[in-house]
Amino acid sequence: MTESPLHAALAAAAADVEKSLDRLLPAAIGPEGRLMEAMRYASLSGGKRLRPFLVLESAGIFDVKRVCALRAATAVECVHCYSLVHDDLPAMDDDDLRRGKPTVHKAFDEATAVLAGDALLTYAFELLAAPDTHDDPRVRLELVAVLAQASGPHGMVGGQMADLAAEAPDAEFDLGAVTRMQKMKTGALIQAAAEVGAILGKASPEARAALRGYAHDLGLAFQITDDLLDVEGRVEDTGKAVAKDAARGKATFVSILGVERARAQAERLIDQAIRHIAMFGSRADNLSALARYVIERKS
Amino acid sequence: MTESPLHAALAAAAADVEKSLDRLLPAAIGPEGRLMEAMRYASLSGGKRLRPFLVLESAGIFDVKRVCALRAATAVECVHCYSLVHDDLPAMDDDDLRRGKPTVHKAFDEATAVLAGDALLTYAFELLAAPDTHDDPRVRLELVAVLAQASGPHGMVGGQMADLAAEAPDAEFDLGAVTRMQKMKTGALIQAAAEVGAILGKASPEARAALRGYAHDLGLAFQITDDLLDVEGRVEDTGKAVAKDAARGKATFVSILGVERARAQAERLIDQAIRHIAMFGSRADNLSALARYVIERKS
Repeated sequence: MTESPLHAALAAAAADVEKSLDRLLPAAIGPEGRLMEAMRYASLSGGKRLRPFLVLESAGIFDVKRVCALRAATAVECVHCYSLVHDDLPAMDDDDLRRGKPTVHKAFDEATAVLAGDALLTYAFELLAAPDTHDDPRVRLELVAVLAQASGPHGMVGGQMADLAAEAPDAEFDLGAVTRMQKMKTGALIQAAAEVGAILGKASPEARAALRGYAHDLGLAFQITDDLLDVEGRVEDTGKAVAKDAARGKATFVSILGVERARAQAERLIDQAIRHIAMFGSRADNLSALARYVIERKS
Repeated sequence: MTESPLHAALAAAAADVEKSLDRLLPAAIGPEGRLMEAMRYASLSGGKRLRPFLVLESAGIFDVKRVCALRAATAVECVHCYSLVHDDLPAMDDDDLRRGKPTVHKAFDEATAVLAGDALLTYAFELLAAPDTHDDPRVRLELVAVLAQASGPHGMVGGQMADLAAEAPDAEFDLGAVTRMQKMKTGALIQAAAEVGAILGKASPEARAALRGYAHDLGLAFQITDDLLDVEGRVEDTGKAVAKDAARGKATFVSILGVERARAQAERLIDQAIRHIAMFGSRADNLSALARYVIERKS
């Protein structure tokens, strides 16, 4: 990534989110202090902060106060981080490394990892429901509703279960099934992140739908690129073991479409994503640039 | 328990909650169907339904519509059931049986148990945030806030972490530490259950505080009785392995106070709990009877 307005905005958002997490996550005190340490370890370890960035940028379109948008962005990131902690568990993906660091169950222990994930998820709703997030309780309630739907059995957790089913030796996942699974597993939360900004800004139904559409296409393109990186990526760039999916014989966009068609599909989705937000003009420049970056990234 | 108004009310509540869970929990469809099956297995397996009963009875004091109270009661029970699923995991208490049936990770597998717990927790907030729970969005938001606080790092999950810390060989848990841990681990959700009824009924601050006080004392007495049953209970009555805490050398109310003083303390708490709700007169008869039952139960 070269120095650019997007680069600057991503870096500023990541720094703000890091500070916000540090400020908002509970301090490690008392006999349960290990839990808070693990919550902090799981979330204060950098990462792209893609979802908080979507919250902040979509909120920015509607001139939402940065402090409110940051709280909501932090809640969304807590949900994302919880999902990573649980996904990494030995019973799930059994990963030892995440962003080049030991995963939570490696740095702490399995019980603490289960509980830290639970706590991050619960704390996200606590954050959203608190008055500091928005003056209007109806707005806060809608944030809770959208985040819960995106993360629950019809969203992220359901997608994770479908993803495990896809690993079974007799699983038959065609393009439709893989697309549906990925929309649930990663797409739903990405979509919710963009929607959170619109909700905070009391956006019109049309504006909200435009951001939903943008994030829908962005999320799929993001996942296709992840699959491409899984095949092509080098371990130094991605910071995790590569070609894991291929080694498991698991159906992915790339295994079904092949590298070239998958890449073309990601590019089509990104063009479509950018068209969705044309209505916001230059206010959505960073979101457009993000869409292009998502399929060009190397990690 | 002999046939009594309490018995009838408990049985009716348990039946209603069972029906409500069955109606409200998502159906098992698609490649992620195993997740919904596990959510249902974890929650549709009976149990005392103490927390939903507290919601229903406290809501009843304020003439809350039964259908609204049942939705909120169902959400609270989802949180309770999620906590049991995760507590039973091999990395945690490593229990094979729950209510005489194989635990979720035994009946399904560990990954599914982790995800089913996650999904039940998330779904609880989805239920509370939906319009059917109460007409007033501010009420729904307050339900979310109270349930999240009670379940999160300063409540149930924090208590679970402190409980694990208490199992360490070098742990020094005195009466104060055990009381604090139990207030977080089991007390917070019990208290939230009674408070949910008050919130639904837009109760006065005094009435809400009375129900909080009642549930606070009830929760502690409930836990002390659990500790007593752990020492004295017979496996046929409790449906789980007994004397586990003692075998682990873990500090409990009974190990610190001894059987007689622990029992006396539970009785004092129950008297106090009943005094808290005297202001509601005969409307709180079931809650008073429940308090007495909690320390007389054999399982």
